[in-house]
Amino acid sequence: MFSAGHAKYLPKTSGLCQKLLDNELLSEISSYKNVSEEIFRLAKFVDKFGARPSGSVILEDSIDYMIQLTRDEGINDVTTEELEVPHWVRGNEVITMLKPRVKNIDLLGLGRSVSTPEDGITAEVIVFSNFEQLEATPLEDIKGKIVLYDPVFTTYGETVVYRSNGATKAAEKGASAALVRSITPFSINSPHTGSQTYDGNVTKIPTAAITLEDADLIRRLYNRGETVVLNIKMSSTYDTKISRNTIIDLKGIEKPEKLVIVSGHIDSWDVGQGAMDDGGGLLISWAAPVILNHLNLRPKRTIRSIFWTAEELGLIGAYAYEEKHRNESSNINFIMESDEGTFAPLGLAVAGNQEARCIIAEILNLFASINASTLVEDDSPGSDINVIIQTGVPGASLHNANERYFWFHHTDGDTMNVEDPKELDLCAAFWTAVAYIIADLSVDIPR
Amino acid sequence: MFSAGHAKYLPKTSGLCQKLLDNELLSEISSYKNVSEEIFRLAKFVDKFGARPSGSVILEDSIDYMIQLTRDEGINDVTTEELEVPHWVRGNEVITMLKPRVKNIDLLGLGRSVSTPEDGITAEVIVFSNFEQLEATPLEDIKGKIVLYDPVFTTYGETVVYRSNGATKAAEKGASAALVRSITPFSINSPHTGSQTYDGNVTKIPTAAITLEDADLIRRLYNRGETVVLNIKMSSTYDTKISRNTIIDLKGIEKPEKLVIVSGHIDSWDVGQGAMDDGGGLLISWAAPVILNHLNLRPKRTIRSIFWTAEELGLIGAYAYEEKHRNESSNINFIMESDEGTFAPLGLAVAGNQEARCIIAEILNLFASINASTLVEDDSPGSDINVIIQTGVPGASLHNANERYFWFHHTDGDTMNVEDPKELDLCAAFWTAVAYIIADLSVDIPR
Repeated sequence: MFSAGHAKYLPKTSGLCQKLLDNELLSEISSYKNVSEEIFRLAKFVDKFGARPSGSVILEDSIDYMIQLTRDEGINDVTTEELEVPHWVRGNEVITMLKPRVKNIDLLGLGRSVSTPEDGITAEVIVFSNFEQLEATPLEDIKGKIVLYDPVFTTYGETVVYRSNGATKAAEKGASAALVRSITPFSINSPHTGSQTYDGNVTKIPTAAITLEDADLIRRLYNRGETVVLNIKMSSTYDTKISRNTIIDLKGIEKPEKLVIVSGHIDSWDVGQGAMDDGGGLLISWAAPVILNHLNLRPKRTIRSIFWTAEELGLIGAYAYEEKHRNESSNINFIMESDEGTFAPLGLAVAGNQEARCIIAEILNLFASINASTLVEDDSPGSDINVIIQTGVPGASLHNANERYFWFHHTDGDTMNVEDPKELDLCAAFWTAVAYIIADLSVDIPR
Repeated sequence: MFSAGHAKYLPKTSGLCQKLLDNELLSEISSYKNVSEEIFRLAKFVDKFGARPSGSVILEDSIDYMIQLTRDEGINDVTTEELEVPHWVRGNEVITMLKPRVKNIDLLGLGRSVSTPEDGITAEVIVFSNFEQLEATPLEDIKGKIVLYDPVFTTYGETVVYRSNGATKAAEKGASAALVRSITPFSINSPHTGSQTYDGNVTKIPTAAITLEDADLIRRLYNRGETVVLNIKMSSTYDTKISRNTIIDLKGIEKPEKLVIVSGHIDSWDVGQGAMDDGGGLLISWAAPVILNHLNLRPKRTIRSIFWTAEELGLIGAYAYEEKHRNESSNINFIMESDEGTFAPLGLAVAGNQEARCIIAEILNLFASINASTLVEDDSPGSDINVIIQTGVPGASLHNANERYFWFHHTDGDTMNVEDPKELDLCAAFWTAVAYIIADLSVDIPR
């Protein structure tokens, strides 16, 4: 798929990147045998460790494994940076509908949720489709009840606020617990966990996601005037541990202090196996320096691969990195992250000024042969990297054919079965080539 | 969608059914307000009872509810026929992978599975893709092990044999338990239960379905030479109870002894809510006599609606009906069942001789305006009705756009969320119209 004809898509007027393609870079990268082994590497990693939640020993073991794998590939410029991370551990979680009939309600507690008393919380449910309805309801109608938010999924960004802020807003109204319809457009009775934060002053109430199916069932019963009573039993523990960001450098030959960063996060939720979120992004970001090193392709600038830690509980690793490296921030030429799937690559979602986007657009034109030339203008791309992008650094996240991403996101279904070998290889080749071209450009990406 | 233009699709050469369309039958049926309420009826029924497993009190309550609903609609010709049904009750079920690492393995025990000892069965796994591999393996390599079948889903009929016969064949080789990769083409870590039978002579070993994800994980570990050890804990109870087939007649005005049967099964698996399997089929088969009664449309022959009981544990209600009514079998003009979803109707899957199929094909031509004119030749259509079709009675099952049927089949995801209001209405109108036309034809469906 790489070999034929993409030269014809070169922007004739610019010539900016043409010299970079003397050696048919993408073709060369894709012909490198290890690209076609990414799926095996990813499977081996994911199968060996499974879920890698923040603060766990397994996460640290998986970091050590990736470091050793890097050294085994002949790259020794690997460092780690320690930081304190949340260590929230899910205990038993059971919700039983008691009225109007007895039914088990599948759930996943949300990150940092507090426990219920041992016998659980037994209360009537009040259902809201949005915060406006909650706000408009008198406190005495909510007090002591279990609030269920049942927003219909539109986009992740629009809908996820009910997961991230729902407990706080319900607590402000005196609710005893907060449930949210899982943030997904599709379900086979699959609850989706995710992070949430308690605002400083509110009473911390237990909070969990339930399935679309059960949320819709409760909504129908509620709309028919039935009294819906649930018993919620949840337990969890919370403390902090030390984890590490991991940094792999393939030093640039002309401007080694200048960085083109590729990244993914190595931690995952405690459910599923973290294959899609973010095993795939981790692997292709690991692959970039490794493949280039094998091919003896050394760009002018340094290619830095970062494995962020503790992304899932609030971009903890990214915030620590940004703080620690703030005074070197001007050296970050471009920062990339893949954290929304490694399905077929379509291009990049790019933050930066108009000139920066024009340069990236021209680079993306080189990938027309694999249909990866789309530039999406996005002022907040990625998850971790957005922390750095907001300080003015230009960057991009992988834009890929991830229509089904949120079907599996933060569920037990985030496993190797989501990953397609060819698409993952294509992502690895695309990611590596883009990083190489940017790192080897004669000009910096302007700010 | 019904009103315009379908007359132009009438087979001009035959004229067989043209007179039946004087009153634009489908249009009339679809205009009947209750058709557009099927989704509300179905939701109310499913929400009220949830799962309705064979032998349960809930199943009998749901039968009583449907009988009352029928009487409320002004149809009093309702009878029930008692029969003994299996009452298999699932207890606790836990599988833990112990080697090469500890991981919870989601499962659903298969119908009639026996329990494990209290501490479970702990044994090494041996993986087979098909029975040929099992047969070719020496008994001493299988003895005491847990057999996992991991066939890739092709069609349900082809793949389901590993669920229905897997335990027996593994037991013949001395296995301690049998697991099967769930019979589905798609999964969000969803285990799919289903029936299985132990052959008379073998030792009954515990048997369950695991998810595609975990089956594929175990397969990968196994192929890498890892020793995979599981602990399987399952409990269940088994006895028999009395249940009922339900029969609703809308008597024919010319040949009341002649029957056109429409049917679905009222029992469901104990997981999910039995909305798709077979709440939808039940509802449209219930709707046929009810709608015709409301419209004062009385065909020449009797329309009989049957709610089969205990389909899921082996077509128990259908076998009892066939035996009890064997001597009246010649009076069954045509028998229909919907048990593969009530998505957009496409036509019928028809068993019968060539002449019978030609007549049905001409009738189906009348439904070109809703794209429901397809006749699939199928010598074993339906589930329950196949018991009667195999005695020589012509019949058909609903052919519908059910590409995703097996995604939800026998899982906790079989809920109202699978049902589409418009598609369900279209099915009810189509089903009612087809039954009416066949019941009112001047000729019997030939055998």
